[in-house]
Amino acid sequence: MGFASIMKIFLPKDRVFYGLFEEVSNNLTQMSDIFNKAVVEKDVTARNTLLKSLEEWEHKNDEVTHKIFIELGRNFITPFDREDIHYLATSLDDVADYLWGASKRVMNYGIDDLDEITLEFAQIIAKSITALNKAIHGLRDMKDLRSLTEACVLINSLENEGDDTLDKGMMQLFSSNINPVEIIKKKDLYQMLEIVTDKCEDAANVIESIIIKYV
Amino acid sequence: MGFASIMKIFLPKDRVFYGLFEEVSNNLTQMSDIFNKAVVEKDVTARNTLLKSLEEWEHKNDEVTHKIFIELGRNFITPFDREDIHYLATSLDDVADYLWGASKRVMNYGIDDLDEITLEFAQIIAKSITALNKAIHGLRDMKDLRSLTEACVLINSLENEGDDTLDKGMMQLFSSNINPVEIIKKKDLYQMLEIVTDKCEDAANVIESIIIKYV
Amino acid sequence: MGFASIMKIFLPKDRVFYGLFEEVSNNLTQMSDIFNKAVVEKDVTARNTLLKSLEEWEHKNDEVTHKIFIELGRNFITPFDREDIHYLATSLDDVADYLWGASKRVMNYGIDDLDEITLEFAQIIAKSITALNKAIHGLRDMKDLRSLTEACVLINSLENEGDDTLDKGMMQLFSSNINPVEIIKKKDLYQMLEIVTDKCEDAANVIESIIIKYV
Repeated sequence: MGFASIMKIFLPKDRVFYGLFEEVSNNLTQMSDIFNKAVVEKDVTARNTLLKSLEEWEHKNDEVTHKIFIELGRNFITPFDREDIHYLATSLDDVADYLWGASKRVMNYGIDDLDEITLEFAQIIAKSITALNKAIHGLRDMKDLRSLTEACVLINSLENEGDDTLDKGMMQLFSSNINPVEIIKKKDLYQMLEIVTDKCEDAANVIESIIIKYV
Repeated sequence: MGFASIMKIFLPKDRVFYGLFEEVSNNLTQMSDIFNKAVVEKDVTARNTLLKSLEEWEHKNDEVTHKIFIELGRNFITPFDREDIHYLATSLDDVADYLWGASKRVMNYGIDDLDEITLEFAQIIAKSITALNKAIHGLRDMKDLRSLTEACVLINSLENEGDDTLDKGMMQLFSSNINPVEIIKKKDLYQMLEIVTDKCEDAANVIESIIIKYV
Repeated sequence: MGFASIMKIFLPKDRVFYGLFEEVSNNLTQMSDIFNKAVVEKDVTARNTLLKSLEEWEHKNDEVTHKIFIELGRNFITPFDREDIHYLATSLDDVADYLWGASKRVMNYGIDDLDEITLEFAQIIAKSITALNKAIHGLRDMKDLRSLTEACVLINSLENEGDDTLDKGMMQLFSSNINPVEIIKKKDLYQMLEIVTDKCEDAANVIESIIIKYV
């Protein structure tokens, strides 16, 4: 019997959730990095290769999320409330889904001129996912509650920035003489990106409620 | 005192949920059958008569869903977790709502030329609701867990097909020279139909989590 | 030690929720009043001043909602089920968000000619929020269960009216010779307003389930 197997016996079953959530938030960080590389890439072919690669990450993330739900069904004891685990897993899965959804739209709709609004969203999403990743890794030991809370507050304010960016984007679309079909395409893209920030906020709110119960 | 009344006394109160969920999933099957008949009907008047009839089914379904929530409030003991009953009822209700929503749009927007994309969605929805119906009827005795799980896996893969159909549909709309107003109408219809497959998946995920807790 | 401090000691901790929910529903009533004043205001500058003032109310509401979640984390004993408090707070917060979202769209999109559909929505929302406010104030003593239930039933039927208004609005947009960009703007506005009625219904459904468990 190897060391790993012995460890597995002594590892409290409920600690498996920390590792799974960390895996998800690492995946999201990768996805956000790739998305941010893609939106500043001028060469459309190279950009689409980057965007296309997000599909695989999204699938990978689906599998980890599925594992979380299976563990949730199996484990009677969980490190935090069952419904918090459920909400957190669902919100994080949605972050991946909508980021991939936005990427697909860029490719499928042939939106080759990625505008300032899209770049702004990419940066907001990067900041939000960085804070989310930090918060999720902080759940394991719950040592630095102040920085955990600060990360959640930051994600909330980034969601407000996302709202403002969407408003600005829509006003620009309507004030310019862009043809209606282009408006439909970009509106769809902007909305997807704004939902990414919403779902990050949903996840942060769950984390905040976990912290409140802990203290 | 008749046999039925005697049975009612001995029938464990929590078993009422099986019958109610089966009623809902039978309703959904009827709705999907009617919708599939409607989309291949060439005569617009006959088609609209079929589509219009879905409103009554949707109302019928609302009432059963309402009964589930009332029983959920009344019964202290439930056959599966309370939040699972809540989620399952909500998802199934949404399936009916969005299918009726899509049907209304076909009529209200005067989308008389139902295209290949709509037919494809109708077939995906039919397969998904057939699998859902099977899974829900399997909950009562939990005998054939393998086929229950297979139904849920199928519904998940049909939701992916629905995603692809939406992508294909949107690309066709944008690549053709359709006028923007037609794009707005069809985009709305396609999105409603895609949400039907999403809600079937939500229901399947709840069923899967019920199975996991059972084994 | 003042009287207030003494009272605080004797006030059962879980009763704090009633006051917070009442604060939220009072805020929503204010928001709905302002919105209804705005939509009948002919002077665009005066109208936008009214609409703009909703932002502050929305922020105020966010803070009370946040307090509810903090109390939910802190209090082991709650007056009704924890998940009901969570759902109710979320739905009410969404009512404020979407009403402010609709108001922003009127301003940002420069929709200066507020049509009959928008006025109709404003009135439906006013009736729905009035009923909601009444229901929420009724939760504290649970004395008049009949009028509590009637308020919830009314909100449900107002949501159906909202659906019909949206259908009518969309048919008018498509049947007129409005240009596509105007259709996109108004569709977005109508949908936001319809979601307000949906979220009122979500809140009413939670209240109904609280009543069912109580009787």
